[in-house]
Amino acid sequence: MSVIGVLGGGQLVRMLALAGVPLGMRFVFLDPKHDACAASLGEFLCGDYDDCEKLAHLAELADVVTYEFENVPEKSIECIVGRVPVFPGAVSLSACRDRLREKKLFKKAGIPTTVFEPVASLEDLKNAAAKIGLPAVLKTRTLGYDGKGQAVLRGPDDITAAWARLGGVPLILEKFAAFQREVSMICVRGLKGEIVFYPLTENVHKDGILHFSRIRPGDGFEAKAREYAGRLLEELAHVGVLVLELFCVGEELLANEIAPRVHNSGHWTINGAETSQFENHIRAILDLPLGGTGAKGSVAMVNFVGRLPEMGKVLAVPGAKLHIYGKEPRPCRKLGHATVVAGTEKELDAALEMLLALGKE
Amino acid sequence: MSVIGVLGGGQLVRMLALAGVPLGMRFVFLDPKHDACAASLGEFLCGDYDDCEKLAHLAELADVVTYEFENVPEKSIECIVGRVPVFPGAVSLSACRDRLREKKLFKKAGIPTTVFEPVASLEDLKNAAAKIGLPAVLKTRTLGYDGKGQAVLRGPDDITAAWARLGGVPLILEKFAAFQREVSMICVRGLKGEIVFYPLTENVHKDGILHFSRIRPGDGFEAKAREYAGRLLEELAHVGVLVLELFCVGEELLANEIAPRVHNSGHWTINGAETSQFENHIRAILDLPLGGTGAKGSVAMVNFVGRLPEMGKVLAVPGAKLHIYGKEPRPCRKLGHATVVAGTEKELDAALEMLLALGKE
Repeated sequence: MSVIGVLGGGQLVRMLALAGVPLGMRFVFLDPKHDACAASLGEFLCGDYDDCEKLAHLAELADVVTYEFENVPEKSIECIVGRVPVFPGAVSLSACRDRLREKKLFKKAGIPTTVFEPVASLEDLKNAAAKIGLPAVLKTRTLGYDGKGQAVLRGPDDITAAWARLGGVPLILEKFAAFQREVSMICVRGLKGEIVFYPLTENVHKDGILHFSRIRPGDGFEAKAREYAGRLLEELAHVGVLVLELFCVGEELLANEIAPRVHNSGHWTINGAETSQFENHIRAILDLPLGGTGAKGSVAMVNFVGRLPEMGKVLAVPGAKLHIYGKEPRPCRKLGHATVVAGTEKELDAALEMLLALGKE
Repeated sequence: MSVIGVLGGGQLVRMLALAGVPLGMRFVFLDPKHDACAASLGEFLCGDYDDCEKLAHLAELADVVTYEFENVPEKSIECIVGRVPVFPGAVSLSACRDRLREKKLFKKAGIPTTVFEPVASLEDLKNAAAKIGLPAVLKTRTLGYDGKGQAVLRGPDDITAAWARLGGVPLILEKFAAFQREVSMICVRGLKGEIVFYPLTENVHKDGILHFSRIRPGDGFEAKAREYAGRLLEELAHVGVLVLELFCVGEELLANEIAPRVHNSGHWTINGAETSQFENHIRAILDLPLGGTGAKGSVAMVNFVGRLPEMGKVLAVPGAKLHIYGKEPRPCRKLGHATVVAGTEKELDAALEMLLALGKE
């Protein structure tokens, strides 16, 4: 029986544990939040991610360590590496925690991405805006998620305010991608280098947070997305799940960002794929055979943010499955999601509409 | 968020909790075994099932109480009833914990069953054997499971030995059913009386323990099995999952026994049905809408008894999912199971053969 150590104890880890316990795995979590929602599913160490003593304890208890988010301090990984295997490895982490390194990785791998410029000063920002052209998006290089750490520059008048809000940390200015759709490619690479891809997933955001996802198997962009994601997996010698988010702009497919971990846009896999992203992440980091990634029908996922709908109403939607994270409700907080697996696209449309309406109630 | 109290903390409860946690449920378990395998998935009270103080504590913590096995002492239920709802109710429990009452229930509901006679003495046994004819099976009226508490009487010479082994507690002699197949009907009744049925499941035993199950949707006996199980649900005003085991003898379908709970022959529903028996049991006892029971393909389940096969080999079987219970290996102990969901019966045959071979390794 393997013990999996995890940096983080949020909903992604909760779902990871729910996939691992049936395989006989045990879990130990490190999270600074006393009410971490994965805590009840394993041994819980409450402590900061840079607390080397707690990290050493985690390493001691675990057979392998993984993490919930790419913003793990490099120091934390240093405290663990050498004591116990860490997957995905330091290369993946380092490439994905910094938007500038990520963009450079795309270039190196020959993957089209938005035009960008690093920004360290207001002067830099003005020059970058002139060079790239507006509209553009100013982003912190690290620690951004769910639209946090971002400012849209529609015209030159927005430059000073955006700098005032985000300046002082390393930034990057990216040309605004007037995309028609945003998609993600969820894929997994095992310890021996074997790779599996899930069907292409289309994502719709609302207020910077993922609102709903829907799979688009056989989409015109699927082959390209696989090719790009596959190149990244190889380049990073990645082990575990990796999610590449992309923009569809006309005929172009532009890489936006990488998550070196299980990802919200892959939650549909729990009920909608032969093997969930969570189970496949566990299989990958433990050198077990990767599981099938085929969809079980037409599948979509709806996030519940800020408040949860009435449970009975969600469960009454045909084909719907509910996942509640056990977190205190708070505005803009992801509290749960529902997936729906339908026999036809039309049935999916109907169920998705019902779930989206319940999310608004 | 509801708290579900459970008498028992074995694998059935472990799987119940794994179905309930995603719905935001919390669990509290009472089990006399210190190493109860569900313990890590909720609050664990270690104590005997007739420990009224512990039972009162369980009732205090829980919003609703359910149980893992029908051999709950009546006294235990008395300690709880009135403090918190208990489902399935006392009527179901009372009918199913005693084989004689169970047989009488079948008769009352007009459901064919094997010929039987109650046995309280050696004299009774001889008379019963003469009346019913041999071969016959002598069974303890209560506490039997996995072939325990049973003796087959092939001829008159076996009577004394069987009495010596089992006598002293209330017994029942049942005519030996020379069945071709054993099947089970897994069904669920909600608090408002709504009923759903899973596809008919065919079971193969080995040494008195379930070896593997395979669904047989559309089987010639399915309609009859539904009709019988439905009558029992109504008769007992049952709330939760109920499993009716039946023998197929020629053209006849004979009721064998009832489990007023989730059951090993329904484990295939975790991966193979739209909603698992565990989730539907939770939905039923909490008055939530019952979920769909359709199969996701051709489905089978193989038990791993006494020892577990190599994990990687099981996970490499196409369509296979593994469930390990986290119990110490011991002869005749159920340690885990694998399910396989296949696109065709032929693919299922191949995968089932591989899993059965792995179970033997």
